[in-house]
Amino acid sequence: MKLIRFGVSLPEDLIKKFDRLIKRKRYATRSEAIRDLIRRELVQEDIESDRVVAGVLSLLYDHHGTSISDTLNALQHDHHNSIISTTHVHLDHDNCLEVILLHGRAKDIKKFADGIISIKGVKHGGLHLTSTG
Amino acid sequence: MKLIRFGVSLPEDLIKKFDRLIKRKRYATRSEAIRDLIRRELVQEDIESDRVVAGVLSLLYDHHGTSISDTLNALQHDHHNSIISTTHVHLDHDNCLEVILLHGRAKDIKKFADGIISIKGVKHGGLHLTSTG
Amino acid sequence: MKLIRFGVSLPEDLIKKFDRLIKRKRYATRSEAIRDLIRRELVQEDIESDRVVAGVLSLLYDHHGTSISDTLNALQHDHHNSIISTTHVHLDHDNCLEVILLHGRAKDIKKFADGIISIKGVKHGGLHLTSTG
Amino acid sequence: MKLIRFGVSLPEDLIKKFDRLIKRKRYATRSEAIRDLIRRELVQEDIESDRVVAGVLSLLYDHHGTSISDTLNALQHDHHNSIISTTHVHLDHDNCLEVILLHGRAKDIKKFADGIISIKGVKHGGLHLTSTG
Repeated sequence: MKLIRFGVSLPEDLIKKFDRLIKRKRYATRSEAIRDLIRRELVQEDIESDRVVAGVLSLLYDHHGTSISDTLNALQHDHHNSIISTTHVHLDHDNCLEVILLHGRAKDIKKFADGIISIKGVKHGGLHLTSTG
Repeated sequence: MKLIRFGVSLPEDLIKKFDRLIKRKRYATRSEAIRDLIRRELVQEDIESDRVVAGVLSLLYDHHGTSISDTLNALQHDHHNSIISTTHVHLDHDNCLEVILLHGRAKDIKKFADGIISIKGVKHGGLHLTSTG
Repeated sequence: MKLIRFGVSLPEDLIKKFDRLIKRKRYATRSEAIRDLIRRELVQEDIESDRVVAGVLSLLYDHHGTSISDTLNALQHDHHNSIISTTHVHLDHDNCLEVILLHGRAKDIKKFADGIISIKGVKHGGLHLTSTG
Repeated sequence: MKLIRFGVSLPEDLIKKFDRLIKRKRYATRSEAIRDLIRRELVQEDIESDRVVAGVLSLLYDHHGTSISDTLNALQHDHHNSIISTTHVHLDHDNCLEVILLHGRAKDIKKFADGIISIKGVKHGGLHLTSTG
């Protein structure tokens, strides 16, 4: 990948604060930190424009719930085209953490996530969307 | 304010996407867009570190609610040291928008906002914190 | 406004934690806390569906910036139909806090806010959208 | 788990909007939707109070980057106590999605995530924290 170099002007006090931030967040260079800030904005735009993105859906649920494992499994098979893989962790005696990796249009992934998070027995769900920006 | 200039390296495809983003968000230069991204991070840190910040508390409420205007007024007088000013708008026949400008430590402002938003009759409240970064 | 009453079932440990949360956030009753949680969801939907909402745009800027006050003023006059009122605070020797109250479709308000926040000299900007849900 | 039932009062128009929201989000009952809203608040409090939580860290990176796979691997081994498991997906010719499941105090997980996301070559990273509320 070709790198392009250009000049940026910042007020002196802003650059001092930025350098401290870079140190705390452990970036190696200003360029790397700026690249990250820009990519975060671009991913946000991909999501708002309903482009194809990858999704990471995290679910926390009590496996004692009536038939919740079966329901989750059936729902995932209905959408097997959008699901890349699923990882399951036995967090403690009662609770499971299940992480479903998805790809597809941002809106479709969100809708699928809504349908899963609303299942009785799912205690907490969260969807993180990402893209190459 | 002294400006300091330094070089930033970005991959070619990232810079193209960034330039399109800048255009959509109507920034005049790359430097101005990068300054904004950095300042946003710094403000976030000021908030998490409980520094002195400015707050803008927006409240939407129905003024027909029992004594809600009196309650809001009394509460604000109890905290007059933290309140800069209040603007009140008659949105429609029933609803008021009240915007309270505050200054103080991030945690104190948040606590005050919690106390106001939880008042019976306040339909929706939101707190925006800002700082000079 | 007619009140409707219905029953809600919560697991015992969840209700205990909820009651502690209510106390910390200073809600008078469970109903009031639940009303707030629901309204927050509804406002979110109004925003995503581009309905007419109210906006509170907060800007922090250094008034020494070249002609920034004039630029802000001119831009606001171009959109006087969407602007309800503006409050200006002299935060310290250099910095101003300006809060612009807006009404209109969510997307239009966001676009206007983008155009203002990207102005050279605006250090930090934030937009809070609200509605009657 | 013992269920406790109590009454909630909502204004008529709010309950109508809530019922439409429930339908769109596909909740089976009002109770289930309210449980979800409450749990989300409680998880937020667990995070702010630095309690032990579970974390799902999603990373998108180009595996052609100099030694990035080695760096990621080494960093994960240094923190093997906090890492439950890692799932790796080959998104396209260039890009990988790696999802790391973590447990530990909210602040420690955040710090670890900062250290990973700032690595040169990581294009986008996101951390989702969850707990049993």
